[in-house]
Amino acid sequence: MATANNLRINGDRLWDSLMEMAKIGPGIAGGNNRQTLTDEDAEGRTLFQSWCEAEGLTMGVDKMGTMFFRREGTDPDALPVYVGSHLDTQPTGGKYDGVLGVLAGLEIVRTLNETNTKTKHPIVVVNWTNEEGTRFAPAMMASGVFAGVLSLEEIYAAKDAGGKTVGDELKRIGWAGDEAVGARKMHAFFELHIEQGPILEAENIDIGVVAHGQGLSWQQITLTGRESHTGSTPMPMRINAGLGMARITQLVDEIAWSHAPNAAGAIGHCDVYPNSRNIIPGRAVFTVDFRSPDKAVIEDMEVRLKEGAKKITDEIGLGLEIEKVGGFDPVEFDADCVATVRNAAGRLGYSHRNIVSGAGHDACWINRVAPTAMVMCPCVGGLSHNEAEEIYPEWARAGADVLFHAVVDTAEIVG
Amino acid sequence: MATANNLRINGDRLWDSLMEMAKIGPGIAGGNNRQTLTDEDAEGRTLFQSWCEAEGLTMGVDKMGTMFFRREGTDPDALPVYVGSHLDTQPTGGKYDGVLGVLAGLEIVRTLNETNTKTKHPIVVVNWTNEEGTRFAPAMMASGVFAGVLSLEEIYAAKDAGGKTVGDELKRIGWAGDEAVGARKMHAFFELHIEQGPILEAENIDIGVVAHGQGLSWQQITLTGRESHTGSTPMPMRINAGLGMARITQLVDEIAWSHAPNAAGAIGHCDVYPNSRNIIPGRAVFTVDFRSPDKAVIEDMEVRLKEGAKKITDEIGLGLEIEKVGGFDPVEFDADCVATVRNAAGRLGYSHRNIVSGAGHDACWINRVAPTAMVMCPCVGGLSHNEAEEIYPEWARAGADVLFHAVVDTAEIVG
Repeated sequence: MATANNLRINGDRLWDSLMEMAKIGPGIAGGNNRQTLTDEDAEGRTLFQSWCEAEGLTMGVDKMGTMFFRREGTDPDALPVYVGSHLDTQPTGGKYDGVLGVLAGLEIVRTLNETNTKTKHPIVVVNWTNEEGTRFAPAMMASGVFAGVLSLEEIYAAKDAGGKTVGDELKRIGWAGDEAVGARKMHAFFELHIEQGPILEAENIDIGVVAHGQGLSWQQITLTGRESHTGSTPMPMRINAGLGMARITQLVDEIAWSHAPNAAGAIGHCDVYPNSRNIIPGRAVFTVDFRSPDKAVIEDMEVRLKEGAKKITDEIGLGLEIEKVGGFDPVEFDADCVATVRNAAGRLGYSHRNIVSGAGHDACWINRVAPTAMVMCPCVGGLSHNEAEEIYPEWARAGADVLFHAVVDTAEIVG
Repeated sequence: MATANNLRINGDRLWDSLMEMAKIGPGIAGGNNRQTLTDEDAEGRTLFQSWCEAEGLTMGVDKMGTMFFRREGTDPDALPVYVGSHLDTQPTGGKYDGVLGVLAGLEIVRTLNETNTKTKHPIVVVNWTNEEGTRFAPAMMASGVFAGVLSLEEIYAAKDAGGKTVGDELKRIGWAGDEAVGARKMHAFFELHIEQGPILEAENIDIGVVAHGQGLSWQQITLTGRESHTGSTPMPMRINAGLGMARITQLVDEIAWSHAPNAAGAIGHCDVYPNSRNIIPGRAVFTVDFRSPDKAVIEDMEVRLKEGAKKITDEIGLGLEIEKVGGFDPVEFDADCVATVRNAAGRLGYSHRNIVSGAGHDACWINRVAPTAMVMCPCVGGLSHNEAEEIYPEWARAGADVLFHAVVDTAEIVG
C-alpha cells in the first residue's frame, strides 16, 4: 500500500498562491481588507474557484455561500475528508488568517494530482463564509449554521452597519448557493491556522497540535457612582466609578493568574463617563474577557468575579450590574484526529507541542458535527487581526505539510 | 457713624432677578446655555445693563468686554470696592454658577440705593467675560488678562470649534469696549459663588469663608504595552497597558488620601486602545488631576506619582511617559478681606466654616492684583456644570447678605 511518507507539498507554490490572493482587497498598510460578501470577497472566491477547477475539482455552494471543492476518492461509499478555513479578512486584516488554511487545502490537492496519488475517501476543500464576523456578526457564521448552532433565517437577516443584510449581499455578489446548509456528512475535518498568539514563536516550535479550544465568558460590568467636580469634592465624599473599575481590573488579573497558564483574563474595552479631566467618573462600563479550556475554571472565574466585584463596589458605594454578554463552551477536539496531527508532525520531524486555541475558529463549530482537529503554525510576534500580521514561508510549508499528512492519513492513500 | 448692621438685602428681589436672567439662553433640561460671546450672552448683558442703569450706575467696558458698573462714593480719592462674577454659562450649565455673584452685586447696590446709604469708597459691580472657558479656552479669560496673566493679543486670536475668534465675536455682539484691560485699580474685590461641591450642604453650614483656592496639577500619562489577542496570549506573555492604568488609578487614590482632607486626586479622563473586548490594550492614555491648597503637597503628590508609576510600569514591562498638561498654583486670599467675610457671617448669625475653593474663579486671578476674598453658599448635592444645578432662595439670600456686609464694611458707610 502506498503511503505519503515521501510526499511533500510545494511550499513555493503555496506561498505564491498566498501572495496572489493577497493582491485582492489590499489593505492600506500591507495587509488585506477583503471583508465578507464584498466585491473583493467575490473576486477572491472567483480566483479560488479558478484554481480549484484547474485541478479538476467539482464545486458545491450552499445557501450560506460556503464553497466546497471535491476531489473524488476510490470508494464511492466513503465519506469525504474536509479541509479548509476562510478567505474573508478583518477590515485591517493580514494575508494569512484563514487564507493559509484554505490555500493549504488546495495545495494538498495539487500535490496529490501532480503525484497522481489516489485516496479512498474523497477530499473536499472548503472556504467557509464570514468567519471574521466584523462586517456581519456573529463570527464563524457559516460554520455555525452548518453545525446547527445558528439559524439560517436569522443569519440571513443580520445587517451590516449600512443596513444591508447577509441574505441580500450573498445574492448581490452571486454566491448564494442552492445546497442546504449542514446537509453534508464528513468523515473528518482538518483546519490549519496561524496561531494568532506568541507561544510557538517564543518557544521556537514548528507546529501546534490543537487539542482544545478555549471557552470564553464575556461579562459586561456597569458601575454607577456620582459624577462630581474633582476640585471641590473631598476624598471621603466621592463615589468614583473609575476607581471601582481600576480595582476590578486588578481583581480580574489576579483571578486569571490563579488559573494560569491555560486560563486568561483581561479587560479590553472600557469607558468612563463623562470622561473629562476634572470630573470624577459617575459611570464606568467595561467588559471582562475570561478564557479557559476547562469549563469548571470559567465558572469559578465568573463566581469569583461576582463576589469580588460586589465587595469592591460595596466598599466604594457604587452601584453594580453584571451582565453576561458572550459565552462559548470550551472545545475538545476529536482524540483520533488530534493524534493523527501529532503523529504527522512527529513523522515529518517537526518540533511540536499541544496548544489551546485561544481564538474561535470554524473548526470549533464543525467539531460538533464531525471528528475535527486543527494544526497551527507560528506567527511573528503573535500578531493577528492586523495588517502587519506576518509568517515565514517555512512556517507555512511546515504547517501545510503536517495538514497534508493528517488529511491523507485520514483519507487513506490507495494503490 | 452709620453701620450696615440693620441692613439686609432683599432676597425675593435677588431671586426674581436670577429667574429673569435664567430665561435668556434656556437649556434643554431646566438650566442654561448662555455661552460667552453668543447672541444669548449679548441679550443677558443688555438686561443686566438695563438693571444697573436703572440704579443710576455708570458703565465702563474694557477691551475684553468686561462690564463695570460704578456707584460713586463720597471720597473722590478712594479706590472702588469691586464685587461680581460672571454671567456666561457652560453649554449645559445651571442658573446660579457665576450669575448669583453678579446679581448679588447688583442687589447690594439696590439695597444701598433704596436705603439711601452712602459709602466712602465707590462700589463697582462686575461681569467678567468668559469665565467658563468651554467655548473659548482658557477659563477665567477676561480676569486672567486683567491680572496680566494672559495676553490680550493671544486671547483675541483664540478660536472656538467653528473657527471664530474671541476678538471677532466680541465685536460682532457689540461688547468690545475701549478701556485698557487691567487699567483699573481696586481697593478690594469680593466674589460670591455657589460652592460647586458637597461640603456645606452635607455639614448643614450656611456660608463658606474661602481662605484658599486649590492649586492643581494635571499629568497626562501614556502607557505603551503590546496589543494582543485576549484568547491566545498567555498571562505571562502580556504587556497590558490597561492593567498599568488600573494600578496607577489605585496609586493616585492612595496618594490623595494620604493628604486628605484638603488634597484630592483622581483620574477623570482615560482611554485604552484599541478598546475592543477581545484585545489586550496596547496603549492607555489618561490624565491625573491632583489638587491641594498647599503647593508643597502638590509637589509631593507629583513626585510620588512619578516614582510609583515607574515601579508599576517596570513590573509589567510597560513604556511610561508623563507630561504635565496643566497647573495652577494654590491661591491664598487676602487675610483682611477673608476676615471681613468671616466677621460678616458671624455678625449676621450664619453658621460658617473655612473652605477651600476647588474650582477656579475670577477671584483667583484678581487676587494677584488686589486684596480679594470669596463667599460661598451651598448647592444641592454639590452639583454644578449641569442643568440640574440647584440652590434654595434662603441660601442665595444668606450668601448675598454676607457679601453685602463684607462689601460695605470695606467700602465704609458714611453719615
